[in-house]
Amino acid sequence: MKTRVGIIGATGYTGVELLRLLFHHPEVEVTALTSQKYAGVEIGRVFPTLMNHLELKCEELSVERISQKVDFVLTAVPHKTAMETVPLFYRRGKKVVDLSADFRLKDPVVYERWYQKHTAADLLPESVYGLPEFHREKIRSAKIVGNPGCYPTGALIGLIPLVKKELISLEAIIVDAKSGVSGAGRDVVLESLFCEVNEGVKAYKIFAHRHTPEIEQELSQIVQREIKVTFVPHLIPMDRGILTTLYVRLIKKLKTEDLLNAFQDYFRGEPFIRIYPKGKLPNTKDVRGSNFCDIGAVVSEPDDRAVVVTAIDNLVKGASGEAVQNMNIMLGCPETMGLEVVPLFP
Amino acid sequence: MKTRVGIIGATGYTGVELLRLLFHHPEVEVTALTSQKYAGVEIGRVFPTLMNHLELKCEELSVERISQKVDFVLTAVPHKTAMETVPLFYRRGKKVVDLSADFRLKDPVVYERWYQKHTAADLLPESVYGLPEFHREKIRSAKIVGNPGCYPTGALIGLIPLVKKELISLEAIIVDAKSGVSGAGRDVVLESLFCEVNEGVKAYKIFAHRHTPEIEQELSQIVQREIKVTFVPHLIPMDRGILTTLYVRLIKKLKTEDLLNAFQDYFRGEPFIRIYPKGKLPNTKDVRGSNFCDIGAVVSEPDDRAVVVTAIDNLVKGASGEAVQNMNIMLGCPETMGLEVVPLFP
Amino acid sequence: MKTRVGIIGATGYTGVELLRLLFHHPEVEVTALTSQKYAGVEIGRVFPTLMNHLELKCEELSVERISQKVDFVLTAVPHKTAMETVPLFYRRGKKVVDLSADFRLKDPVVYERWYQKHTAADLLPESVYGLPEFHREKIRSAKIVGNPGCYPTGALIGLIPLVKKELISLEAIIVDAKSGVSGAGRDVVLESLFCEVNEGVKAYKIFAHRHTPEIEQELSQIVQREIKVTFVPHLIPMDRGILTTLYVRLIKKLKTEDLLNAFQDYFRGEPFIRIYPKGKLPNTKDVRGSNFCDIGAVVSEPDDRAVVVTAIDNLVKGASGEAVQNMNIMLGCPETMGLEVVPLFP
Amino acid sequence: MKTRVGIIGATGYTGVELLRLLFHHPEVEVTALTSQKYAGVEIGRVFPTLMNHLELKCEELSVERISQKVDFVLTAVPHKTAMETVPLFYRRGKKVVDLSADFRLKDPVVYERWYQKHTAADLLPESVYGLPEFHREKIRSAKIVGNPGCYPTGALIGLIPLVKKELISLEAIIVDAKSGVSGAGRDVVLESLFCEVNEGVKAYKIFAHRHTPEIEQELSQIVQREIKVTFVPHLIPMDRGILTTLYVRLIKKLKTEDLLNAFQDYFRGEPFIRIYPKGKLPNTKDVRGSNFCDIGAVVSEPDDRAVVVTAIDNLVKGASGEAVQNMNIMLGCPETMGLEVVPLFP
Repeated sequence: MKTRVGIIGATGYTGVELLRLLFHHPEVEVTALTSQKYAGVEIGRVFPTLMNHLELKCEELSVERISQKVDFVLTAVPHKTAMETVPLFYRRGKKVVDLSADFRLKDPVVYERWYQKHTAADLLPESVYGLPEFHREKIRSAKIVGNPGCYPTGALIGLIPLVKKELISLEAIIVDAKSGVSGAGRDVVLESLFCEVNEGVKAYKIFAHRHTPEIEQELSQIVQREIKVTFVPHLIPMDRGILTTLYVRLIKKLKTEDLLNAFQDYFRGEPFIRIYPKGKLPNTKDVRGSNFCDIGAVVSEPDDRAVVVTAIDNLVKGASGEAVQNMNIMLGCPETMGLEVVPLFP
Repeated sequence: MKTRVGIIGATGYTGVELLRLLFHHPEVEVTALTSQKYAGVEIGRVFPTLMNHLELKCEELSVERISQKVDFVLTAVPHKTAMETVPLFYRRGKKVVDLSADFRLKDPVVYERWYQKHTAADLLPESVYGLPEFHREKIRSAKIVGNPGCYPTGALIGLIPLVKKELISLEAIIVDAKSGVSGAGRDVVLESLFCEVNEGVKAYKIFAHRHTPEIEQELSQIVQREIKVTFVPHLIPMDRGILTTLYVRLIKKLKTEDLLNAFQDYFRGEPFIRIYPKGKLPNTKDVRGSNFCDIGAVVSEPDDRAVVVTAIDNLVKGASGEAVQNMNIMLGCPETMGLEVVPLFP
Repeated sequence: MKTRVGIIGATGYTGVELLRLLFHHPEVEVTALTSQKYAGVEIGRVFPTLMNHLELKCEELSVERISQKVDFVLTAVPHKTAMETVPLFYRRGKKVVDLSADFRLKDPVVYERWYQKHTAADLLPESVYGLPEFHREKIRSAKIVGNPGCYPTGALIGLIPLVKKELISLEAIIVDAKSGVSGAGRDVVLESLFCEVNEGVKAYKIFAHRHTPEIEQELSQIVQREIKVTFVPHLIPMDRGILTTLYVRLIKKLKTEDLLNAFQDYFRGEPFIRIYPKGKLPNTKDVRGSNFCDIGAVVSEPDDRAVVVTAIDNLVKGASGEAVQNMNIMLGCPETMGLEVVPLFP
Repeated sequence: MKTRVGIIGATGYTGVELLRLLFHHPEVEVTALTSQKYAGVEIGRVFPTLMNHLELKCEELSVERISQKVDFVLTAVPHKTAMETVPLFYRRGKKVVDLSADFRLKDPVVYERWYQKHTAADLLPESVYGLPEFHREKIRSAKIVGNPGCYPTGALIGLIPLVKKELISLEAIIVDAKSGVSGAGRDVVLESLFCEVNEGVKAYKIFAHRHTPEIEQELSQIVQREIKVTFVPHLIPMDRGILTTLYVRLIKKLKTEDLLNAFQDYFRGEPFIRIYPKGKLPNTKDVRGSNFCDIGAVVSEPDDRAVVVTAIDNLVKGASGEAVQNMNIMLGCPETMGLEVVPLFP
């Protein structure tokens, strides 16, 4: 029998992407959708892409009612709403993957410095940071998974192997990320209008983006001391994709091939990580619609500088695809189930 | 046992799209790829999207060699090359879906007026025009299917029901089509450069586009007399999609609902046709990556004018998806096999 | 001494475009800007493009106060607001070019059918429809000019010469227009978000767009009987530009060259109209940022069909540039003043 | 009398941009255009934007003939061609601004390491690096100006003040640049096709881009020792613009305001440099079509990291606009002549 899944907050971009991916998933069935704005409306009217695929109406969030219809919960609501909602499902015995920021940071002090008061801090020890390539075993038995932010996903996949293998200096890590506009969500704000975004590029929230502590938490945990990174996000005129350019200093003598081999070695067997050969660099266009994270790297041998580039689709590996991957692990399904799609090119 | 499929001309945009779709197809296996330009190169090097999906090298076209490796052939080469290639596979007993223009027009005189001398005119009676919604039964037993052009697909799906049901005047049909840039193929020409196309719209080949006779052939065949259409294609700064706006004169008194019902009636049971309710109109964005053709319509009751709008992904329903649909019919597979993908939004 | 100009509603896309164009104008000076949303804010903070060009604060609209500071008024506010504002300036003796719809339609009944109650209908006889290529003499002495809509500008420049010269049937005129997103203005609505618009094309408001009566009014006036047109607007993923494809039936035997000559003849001496030679068709990209309307045409000789294509920048010739052109005429300045800019390519 | 200017290589993107800017220039007249590909063709046929503006035919390059028609030469040809052409005009006493790389690097050894053999190395001591904000006085009397590369312009304007004022460490400068596609020129190559570029972002030529030595030369010259920078360019799906994100380590205690004041101080009186106030960051969209370089900066006070962001239009301040600025200085014209345009937004 299929696992019945509920999506809380189904009408944002991560919501519709969950629906797209789960449609292809043979072992789950979406049985409840919530939306404040579209309660009572057929999901196929909200997103014509889903016409003929899913006949289900959005409903208002009633944890009581929805708990009867679902075995597993994916929450795609804004932070703050998440911390109010997730505990209610948790207490009814539902496993949850939360796509907001509320269950990613382990230290409530850090959370409260970057966000606001945490009203479910008691559940933070329960929750697991949902980057399967690093926490697969813990995810397997988790009740709550805090699905990583899109930027941290692209940064951490490129950095963790280097930190774990002690290949780079921890003092001067720079993360320059370029994101498509869907990363800003479906909120109706001036900054996301077509004519404000198209044909322009900008940096934003320099030293101040809320994904910074997430990156720092995961790196710091490896070495058991505080690591700081310089993280600057940029907005790019495209729908989907994050390209992350990582600037690091090597503390071992390595050639480009050696660095690529280190990635190959670290990610051996990972179904969604693709390491590029020397001389090739990833492009977000080549992962669009898929759960891949592509990695390329170049070393400047004379002075031990290295640049690592990762490419993900922010709505898939950076959000909904990773959430499905986590759900698969938690449910004991094959990890790639529902996610075996070839990227869409062009 | 899986059907072994060969793709002749695998490194254009329709080629890589065939590969994307066939990867999801449980009953076929791609066993040969040809490419003049990339012979000897791993397909995953040509299209990084296919890394980890398909390990196959492009090879030069040898009908002899390839015939031993494949049961079924999809030709995605330019016209002229197609008419030289298809007969060779045909004579070796291979069924072929040809994505070029060479086997679409039944009358070699018409073909030669719009293209050039036809060197395989003897096979035209064998070939079937591959629009499954209209020629399904003939396709089932065809040896050669001429896969429709992208523009004719969008136009004919909106027009044929109206002509068959005798709802419109045949004297003043206007087809105004707007296509994404991938419709021009992957040829390296000035007109397809990003900076020439982006942030602009233009009409081209007014009264002179080679897809005109295809549209006229299919409409004329229904009424057994010559129908002329006014067809103007436009180039739009996006990767994929054709929106076709059809201007027709009703010869029966109809309301918008009646017209939509006529489409509903005609296309009942068609898996890839979606009729929009009154008040909603299709957007190419909502079919992207899928084999759907979405249809909307509005009637101006006082004066019997009507506008019908269809939306397709030119690389899927307008090319490679339709080719897979035809292949499924020819192979006796379920028609939707490999094509049950939710459109990618946003 | 320079003419002092006030811009009412300066912080939309037509507002900032007026400011860009007037910066280059040697005979006027912008001395007042109003904005509800940004009252009290430096215009260079609202639009960084204007930093170092204009040091002026937005203010709330006080007709009293602004009338003391300006000799001429450009109103770039929504319809309804315009009909409440324009009369106040008019009564203080200020000439006005109104960029809204409120002073375009001569017949208040028609206005009220498409918009809402008209509260300044008494001024409609005073106002002139501001298409200089057709109403230049009346504009010269007008007190109020109703600046044409963007779609009517593109349609009428291609149609009026043909109607005036009695070259086409008036029964079956079709106007298929493709507009960039800035035509929707700077309102913060879901439909204008980048991810909703990018990589898609759609038709909207078929038979129901408010620019329809404007086109019909101007054509009908020429022949002194009611002309109906079929008008379908489309939204294209680009910032600026409208391409208008006009489908007409010739009632005289003409070749393509004859039709182009008719345009050449009609528009002789017009500084902003460019007729393309046979075989070339306009692209909105080639008029971007300029006040040009480019025109191309093709005739299908055997059956007397013709297609005319016009290209404008919707924010310039379709709005703010035309407004400046009208202002120049009303002020007795050379008509091209401030508008002699080469389009931006690429 | 106007200065007669010749443009050698007029049909690339920098060529047409020179023509756009010079059209607005009151003291020069373009009297000769060369183009290999379009010799004999009216420039208005090559670029419809120029129809009605300039009636001049492209001609093949004859230094002899062109020298008789022009007083000043702008060369917009590829490197290598430039070093063969510039000396010929120089010997005929013509002043030249060369937009290629051939006269930027002072050390022929460095040039030959990154490009190829330099056949006019004897003229390198004559040539001046054309960044007016740093070399204005030398440019004034130069015979040959090597117009800076687009990336070096964006990087150097953000770095030189910090190096000159000794505010940053010279050991770890990182330049992460994001460029629109026009930076790749108008060459017809697969990588520049719309469908290859649109909806994707990639890094390229990491540690290997030819603009690296230019940046290093100018910084090194200030401190009279070799400075290395890490420079990674990225390709962004837009026509124009370069955003440069500079990562530096402060060696003095500074707040964000202090850093911005340092820029204000350094660039006081510069007509094309705009410093953003604290809390605002530049966007390439806000400089499009203009010669501005906008600068923003943020300091992380606790650890003395700083990020500086500059935005230019790569075809204006990064190429043709800077060339006109240099020409103005060399001719004794006001430096802003022909360049006083408001950026185009949206």
